[in-house]
Amino acid sequence: MIDRNSISAAASRITAYVRHTPVILADLAGSGESPVALKLELLQHAGSFKPRGAFNRLLSADVPAAGVIAASGGNHGAAVAYAARALGITAEVFVPAATPAAKLARIASYGARVVQGGETYAEALTASRERQAETGALEIHAYDHADVLAGQGTVGREFEQAAPDLTHILVATGGGGLIGGIAAWYAGSAQVISVEPQGCPALHDALRAGQPVAAPVGGLAADSLGARQVGALMFPIAQRFVSAAVLVPDEAILAAQRLLWDRLRLVAEPGGATAAAALLCGRFQPPAGSRVGIVVCGANTDPAKLSGP
Amino acid sequence: MIDRNSISAAASRITAYVRHTPVILADLAGSGESPVALKLELLQHAGSFKPRGAFNRLLSADVPAAGVIAASGGNHGAAVAYAARALGITAEVFVPAATPAAKLARIASYGARVVQGGETYAEALTASRERQAETGALEIHAYDHADVLAGQGTVGREFEQAAPDLTHILVATGGGGLIGGIAAWYAGSAQVISVEPQGCPALHDALRAGQPVAAPVGGLAADSLGARQVGALMFPIAQRFVSAAVLVPDEAILAAQRLLWDRLRLVAEPGGATAAAALLCGRFQPPAGSRVGIVVCGANTDPAKLSGP
Repeated sequence: MIDRNSISAAASRITAYVRHTPVILADLAGSGESPVALKLELLQHAGSFKPRGAFNRLLSADVPAAGVIAASGGNHGAAVAYAARALGITAEVFVPAATPAAKLARIASYGARVVQGGETYAEALTASRERQAETGALEIHAYDHADVLAGQGTVGREFEQAAPDLTHILVATGGGGLIGGIAAWYAGSAQVISVEPQGCPALHDALRAGQPVAAPVGGLAADSLGARQVGALMFPIAQRFVSAAVLVPDEAILAAQRLLWDRLRLVAEPGGATAAAALLCGRFQPPAGSRVGIVVCGANTDPAKLSGP
Repeated sequence: MIDRNSISAAASRITAYVRHTPVILADLAGSGESPVALKLELLQHAGSFKPRGAFNRLLSADVPAAGVIAASGGNHGAAVAYAARALGITAEVFVPAATPAAKLARIASYGARVVQGGETYAEALTASRERQAETGALEIHAYDHADVLAGQGTVGREFEQAAPDLTHILVATGGGGLIGGIAAWYAGSAQVISVEPQGCPALHDALRAGQPVAAPVGGLAADSLGARQVGALMFPIAQRFVSAAVLVPDEAILAAQRLLWDRLRLVAEPGGATAAAALLCGRFQPPAGSRVGIVVCGANTDPAKLSGP
């Protein structure tokens, strides 16, 4: 059961290990209308929201001597490596071939063993499970585990504390751990809107089909949002508490990255800029009188990609 | 008179035009000791704290039809251009040859006329004053004006509100507008520490000499901290309320820039990372039990310079 109680329990468990990230108000669209509230979760340890779920899972489990094992497009792997090092645990991370060099280096910098396994996240997950059967390490799933969902839900809890009057929260969706946790926290008290790249429509397609289904994985943000299908645990939460599932083109994600740098001096990776892209490109149009919040959830990119004035 | 009253008045005057920037707690040095509070003023409009002073000056003055004129290493020019555009005023900005391309482009992007005048900030100031005598435009000085100092002091006011228990505040010093305003706000209730690059020791040298004196201008942060000498208005404030004037080598500034990216995903320009450098390189050693605040004051650099994991 992922609800306010389990999320508050997660918040207590992980508070000494994660950053309470700030919220800033900004007229992001330059419209002169009411500013949006940006939750700057890209300033979290290891460069994304992922340590919240990783710490909550690790601190809730009996970790065997073999340590922990995870599959990841990069951010979850960096978070597991970071959390394992903080707790003195051995970690092994399986990544697909598409994982960017900056993320590989970061995972390794935290002392984890990095293994390239397959072309996609799903293949890396399969490879990690074969290895897990040999070693007996604890699997830290990137999204489909109750402790991971509750950990990510602490983003929603902090966001509501900092900006209690929001009516709409835009959240990028990959496997659905972040939006599942946040939607469970708000539980309908604000509209939680899913934003996915057109190339990775896993939640969009699942909500249409009435169940998690295999979806395409491609485009600019595939390394962070490219789950083949959304988690089984998050899906009923999304059916109940996610108001809409918006898709945005890669050009809008790139434009959002550039605008976040130009107007706010924030370096967001493509997946980290995807939620903002929905507002900026008009795929999400806030109703009159709404107060919009956006989770800027990751920064693990090469800042040279934003070079220019 | 620059004091809490004039700074609070400035805060009221400019509140609709500037961002209330967030504060984040982080174990910056990785020592496991008490975290430092970082005031993320690099997320301000135009990429530095400078719009605070520019807006306070503009909103306090009768602006002639000829508009405003300023000399700047870059950040003040961008701020004046930004503020002038927001208020529908014509702006002309004189910059020295050392101003980086990213800053020139930014000033121009806000619609100001950019003129290269001389090799140093001091020469650009002289050129701007010759031009001002022709046009009659209002001069917006980069630091040596009471309204500018009071505007920059609002950084201290916000910092104290967000983190009321700080004992030491590290602030980078160029011409001294920011630290003058912040020191006037705290007025001895916390120790305000000046940090300058070894190549730009204007306040360090002034405090030794007992008066503002001409100092060398060079090194990595010269475009933002390279005033030839500190302002006449800030100097008595510094004598009274700045506890120490620390110098840091350029290598420490570069290391601080890299660490701010690596640990926090913040892109600070050299001048913006200079205050943090004093803590990280040990030139400022916090006493036991101290609670340290650092103003991260500017981000106007090419993020490609931070490229790498």
